[in-house]
Amino acid sequence: MATRVSHNAYGKHRVRISKVRRPRQAPPNAERHELVEVAVDVELQGDFEAAFTHGDNRQVIATDTCKNTLYVLAKDHPIDSVESFGRAVAEHFLGRYAHVEQVDVRLVEQVWDRLAGSDHSFVAAQKMTPTAAVTHRRGESPAVVGGLERLTIAKTTESGFVDFHRDEFRTLADTTDRILATEMTAAWRYSAAEADYAAARESIVAALLERFTDHYSHSVQETLYLMAGAALAACADIGQITLTMPNKHHLLANLAPFDRENENEVFVVTDEPFGYITATVDRE
Amino acid sequence: MATRVSHNAYGKHRVRISKVRRPRQAPPNAERHELVEVAVDVELQGDFEAAFTHGDNRQVIATDTCKNTLYVLAKDHPIDSVESFGRAVAEHFLGRYAHVEQVDVRLVEQVWDRLAGSDHSFVAAQKMTPTAAVTHRRGESPAVVGGLERLTIAKTTESGFVDFHRDEFRTLADTTDRILATEMTAAWRYSAAEADYAAARESIVAALLERFTDHYSHSVQETLYLMAGAALAACADIGQITLTMPNKHHLLANLAPFDRENENEVFVVTDEPFGYITATVDRE
Amino acid sequence: MATRVSHNAYGKHRVRISKVRRPRQAPPNAERHELVEVAVDVELQGDFEAAFTHGDNRQVIATDTCKNTLYVLAKDHPIDSVESFGRAVAEHFLGRYAHVEQVDVRLVEQVWDRLAGSDHSFVAAQKMTPTAAVTHRRGESPAVVGGLERLTIAKTTESGFVDFHRDEFRTLADTTDRILATEMTAAWRYSAAEADYAAARESIVAALLERFTDHYSHSVQETLYLMAGAALAACADIGQITLTMPNKHHLLANLAPFDRENENEVFVVTDEPFGYITATVDRE
Amino acid sequence: MATRVSHNAYGKHRVRISKVRRPRQAPPNAERHELVEVAVDVELQGDFEAAFTHGDNRQVIATDTCKNTLYVLAKDHPIDSVESFGRAVAEHFLGRYAHVEQVDVRLVEQVWDRLAGSDHSFVAAQKMTPTAAVTHRRGESPAVVGGLERLTIAKTTESGFVDFHRDEFRTLADTTDRILATEMTAAWRYSAAEADYAAARESIVAALLERFTDHYSHSVQETLYLMAGAALAACADIGQITLTMPNKHHLLANLAPFDRENENEVFVVTDEPFGYITATVDRE
Repeated sequence: MATRVSHNAYGKHRVRISKVRRPRQAPPNAERHELVEVAVDVELQGDFEAAFTHGDNRQVIATDTCKNTLYVLAKDHPIDSVESFGRAVAEHFLGRYAHVEQVDVRLVEQVWDRLAGSDHSFVAAQKMTPTAAVTHRRGESPAVVGGLERLTIAKTTESGFVDFHRDEFRTLADTTDRILATEMTAAWRYSAAEADYAAARESIVAALLERFTDHYSHSVQETLYLMAGAALAACADIGQITLTMPNKHHLLANLAPFDRENENEVFVVTDEPFGYITATVDRE
Repeated sequence: MATRVSHNAYGKHRVRISKVRRPRQAPPNAERHELVEVAVDVELQGDFEAAFTHGDNRQVIATDTCKNTLYVLAKDHPIDSVESFGRAVAEHFLGRYAHVEQVDVRLVEQVWDRLAGSDHSFVAAQKMTPTAAVTHRRGESPAVVGGLERLTIAKTTESGFVDFHRDEFRTLADTTDRILATEMTAAWRYSAAEADYAAARESIVAALLERFTDHYSHSVQETLYLMAGAALAACADIGQITLTMPNKHHLLANLAPFDRENENEVFVVTDEPFGYITATVDRE
Repeated sequence: MATRVSHNAYGKHRVRISKVRRPRQAPPNAERHELVEVAVDVELQGDFEAAFTHGDNRQVIATDTCKNTLYVLAKDHPIDSVESFGRAVAEHFLGRYAHVEQVDVRLVEQVWDRLAGSDHSFVAAQKMTPTAAVTHRRGESPAVVGGLERLTIAKTTESGFVDFHRDEFRTLADTTDRILATEMTAAWRYSAAEADYAAARESIVAALLERFTDHYSHSVQETLYLMAGAALAACADIGQITLTMPNKHHLLANLAPFDRENENEVFVVTDEPFGYITATVDRE
Repeated sequence: MATRVSHNAYGKHRVRISKVRRPRQAPPNAERHELVEVAVDVELQGDFEAAFTHGDNRQVIATDTCKNTLYVLAKDHPIDSVESFGRAVAEHFLGRYAHVEQVDVRLVEQVWDRLAGSDHSFVAAQKMTPTAAVTHRRGESPAVVGGLERLTIAKTTESGFVDFHRDEFRTLADTTDRILATEMTAAWRYSAAEADYAAARESIVAALLERFTDHYSHSVQETLYLMAGAALAACADIGQITLTMPNKHHLLANLAPFDRENENEVFVVTDEPFGYITATVDRE
């Protein structure tokens, strides 16, 4: 039976790196540290088929070597943003190995916030996880996507859901006042060849959060669309944004059997099942 | 600023259903139960854009309604395989709602094995998780993919890795005897319009495991390719298989400082970082 | 063979409740919401043995009833602190059921921070998880323990570890400059019958963080002891504190093979194995 | 303010070790491997207070040294059972270090089953996780506890719950036919100074599963008590067993709105909230 490898990729995942930036400055900030932590996945495509089909490893850059490389690059690069470090990783592998055709880098940052008043003490912040993905194909410009995970936000009012499709399987009632809660994931695609990724992220996140707050929501769908539009308006360097907003249901507790009226006060919090809503919005 | 929704999808995820099949048979097996459990994600695409752009929910089948529907379908369908139940779910939504253009269903099964000698007691088996994914676009045949997750397998010898690429970042030595361990994910695409999904799964898994065992492995890549070929050879109904085999490293413990020789006996088990290898192999 | 139940307990775990506090105030803050979320475990001990030994359920308050009760109590109580809500839960079960001898309540809070400028939008904060545990035995005062989980903190310098025990299994070298990182758990025991739990928590956390920062650490042990002492000094209402400080290792990456000197800049982040240090410190 | 360390302990957690037993036998089984994997926590108590109170590390056996030691002991010991390896670890630390007063060892095994027909290929089994805990205090006999985690079992009938306590918070109806499902944890305490731990485990698990199946259950409590008694009857070497049986609810789906009768066939599977039942049963 004849077979053929139609696609292959390999690399190292979950290479976790922390870096202390130790700027030697003049006093009084002679040693004011910064701490950055990132987990990196790197994947290679290229002339690797003989390893699969003939047990010939000569072209295979060991995943252990990939890992070594990431630590070296972490030394040489400031890691001022996950996007820029991802680009440097991709460029390195394309530049160093002629038989690599495509590099995919995915990065997840652990943000460390400075503890008040300290030059070298930090607390891990977890209310939002910055992410980046860089795809770099030989001979093309790198495609850079910034993003975030685990931004959990809620509106305790100014949210309803009415007049949705009626059929024999519908049991949910219309409501004009509910909790809307979501654990949002976002990914924005840069159209500009170069950008100030950190400044872009800051303006996009601010726009997303402000828009989440400022309107009465007729549905997760509508709120998602408004937030996506606000992000595109806030940052000229991006041309597209995908938001995924699972509906983390807070269900009104039924207190009627216990002679209490629940005036939208007490809710049952559930993880599953959950509504799932995603859309990609483009600048026209 | 003008924007446009270039893609959208929504639905209900993690709808977890258990079903007791209670065949009313003649004695002595008058009530020999079977227990099946599945978690279902269903996603819809179609004429839903007005909900995003105009807060108009009239076309939106609530995700709560999707959930209700899945429980009703679980009642009406035998759930004899995750693939067939996934097809039934997709067909239902296309058939019932003219404004739905595409249905995606993903299913993850929790296998329950019968406890010896019992008609109605079971133990949750977890050495491999069956999965299925069905994509059904209006006017087309459903695309059915069977698969599995969390099949963790190891070879304690008959595995090496030598003669791989040498460069300034390589520190890993050649080895002709190592542990090869992986937590495999597989996904096989049916080319036949109809198939006995359960029988196909059984023959594919048997072929994967037998091939994993029967050869000296020059790399994860080679073993992956051989296993994929064996699966395609074992089941004529599939035309393509994707295997993902992260390398769950068991690293030889360094006992030299303690005056012990480690004859490939004691290993440090690590989860991360890990080598990641994936390929898709097609029947030609 | 004779057997005897020497201990038993039961209840409902992971009852997740969110509550919107909707204070009806005068304008302009007519409806300035607060959102509190808590997961509660409640366990009962008492005259329940017949259920085990004779299948007699008459004394068994169903765990479903326990769950109902928690939602009712969430309606009736302001949930101004996890400690006070835990006390109310314990008191309710002892007061309502004469055959309950002991109630144990454990609570884990999900903190929601207000989004800037909004009366009713919130973001889930996760840099520290407040906890509480109340044990209330009939005829005794409740024992109240406040605490926290998942406070992940790091010092990038001002930490060393030297002159520790030398023996034939030691390979770790002395170091006078390393990263000290930990994911701390704390539990403080109230000696006062009544306390302002929220104010106490605030002063304890502030003292823990300030002490973490302000000294050169000779070991996790020493830092733990100093932090515990600072917490006891900061809050007269507690008599004992237990700190658990797993050592989340950031290991210096070895860049020597790649002709780079690693001046305490690049580290390998690992989750396991990890050093584990715990101590309980009492006020004398 | 005077403070005092009332308790302290430290050690290394999550030391994950795999060991290949390579018995050099006569052909045809010249090299029939066995693969064992275990994660070990070791904790020490003793004369360590000066590290906390005076930054004096001279008595501190580094947790890195503890880790080294575990790998050396894994080389020297057959790891024929988690209990026996735990005892060897405890004895080593007490024997080697005069200033250690108590050693606590906790072990969690990853079982690897042989792939059919292979001398050296294995699949990770996960339907039950063996555990052990050894507490060894200087001058006393070691206390050995065998156990298991994650044994998920279900009865699809022969289980009911009726006549439980009635009060104003009860809404759950009596039922004489329900699914009883649990993810059981067990811990049995050896009274014998020496025992064949592997044989004991086998007979205890067989007794637990057989008893789970063989009766009509009036409650989780009753079934727990019967199972505990069966384990004590099956193994004379143990004097006490603790079973924890969270009630993993499979709730009957309400299909009435959809004109279907649910004859105990379709269930909603939930993880939380969950009923929690535990008891310790002693041999009299």
